[in-house]
Amino acid sequence: MSFSPLVDRLMESFRVLPGVGPKTAQRMAMHLLERDREGGQRLAEVLGVALEQVGYCQRCRTLTEETICALCESDRRDDSVLCVVESPADLLAIEDARGYRGRYFVLHGHLSPLDGIGPEDIGLDQLDARVAEDGVEEVILATNPTVEGEATAHYIASQLGPRGVKLSRLAYGVPMGGELEYVDGGTLSRAFNGRLPFESE
Amino acid sequence: MSFSPLVDRLMESFRVLPGVGPKTAQRMAMHLLERDREGGQRLAEVLGVALEQVGYCQRCRTLTEETICALCESDRRDDSVLCVVESPADLLAIEDARGYRGRYFVLHGHLSPLDGIGPEDIGLDQLDARVAEDGVEEVILATNPTVEGEATAHYIASQLGPRGVKLSRLAYGVPMGGELEYVDGGTLSRAFNGRLPFESE
Ligand SMILES: [Zn+2]
Ligand SMILES: [Zn+2]
Repeated sequence: MSFSPLVDRLMESFRVLPGVGPKTAQRMAMHLLERDREGGQRLAEVLGVALEQVGYCQRCRTLTEETICALCESDRRDDSVLCVVESPADLLAIEDARGYRGRYFVLHGHLSPLDGIGPEDIGLDQLDARVAEDGVEEVILATNPTVEGEATAHYIASQLGPRGVKLSRLAYGVPMGGELEYVDGGTLSRAFNGRLPFESE
Repeated sequence: MSFSPLVDRLMESFRVLPGVGPKTAQRMAMHLLERDREGGQRLAEVLGVALEQVGYCQRCRTLTEETICALCESDRRDDSVLCVVESPADLLAIEDARGYRGRYFVLHGHLSPLDGIGPEDIGLDQLDARVAEDGVEEVILATNPTVEGEATAHYIASQLGPRGVKLSRLAYGVPMGGELEYVDGGTLSRAFNGRLPFESE
């Protein structure tokens, strides 16, 4: 097709968004042009400013436009526990679950020698310095339960071992509310090995 | 949550897109910030420019940044047939189907007295003038097969009647490749009433 090079470029541009194919991109472009130009302008502006100004928190490396993020600045968090995650989205998921009141450290990825991603690329020198200085007593290795996430957790554990901090990993098991028949075998085996005494109140 | 007011605003801004809830908006913001800042900047720029520069073609009212769109400028289209559609997306769908080689006229909606949308709001004065001047021999009323689309088609038909042009409407029937059992009753009845002689080659 088309009737307009600029409308074509707009539809094409939406395809940078995850999960957006040509049909969805067209619907997005048409929706904003036909029904919500104001909302679209706001999106264009905020997106431009955010991509320019949002960087990493100097302390925990999560995404923020400040030097130090709100989570690091807060005096209502426990300095003695540090949770290491692969991405800011993981941090958000843990915050949404509530309950955790310690601090965070964000790797923005995992070790991947084949892709040339080494310890410094995921901030492990900074993590080590932080644990050395800060009165951290426990580091929770909340990297993903994948081969790469496991390998990264093991690497960090061996790096931080000499610091004498307690190291922990999130529990593996069957997800709450799921049905056993749909849980994969590896997870089921882990759940059996990690079984707990039944508490009958 | 959050760790950053600007990241929050970005996630919120994505929700102007059709079908984008909080989870998807978060994934979009994270994806661009973490993995594709360049693509995101391009989207922000193109979106801003498009919303500012794209208006209606003076001739057919489709979306374009030009005074007259490429479809109207083309000398490879048949001036004697004019297809009236409700939206630029409908025009795109017809172009994608190929086959149609005439011109278009885009209403950007349908008559809706309760919402205060009258004939001038959907360009019917302009449509009438176009048919009067232009050597149009047939007007295809390709408004949606909905109550409002039907009413709009009837209104246009009565308006253009005195011009002596041939008026037509898209055929109703069962969609190609669909299964009869999933076709609604109204469509099936129409398909029966409009049945055609079977051509056995
Ligand atoms: Zn921070
Ligand atoms: Zn045009």
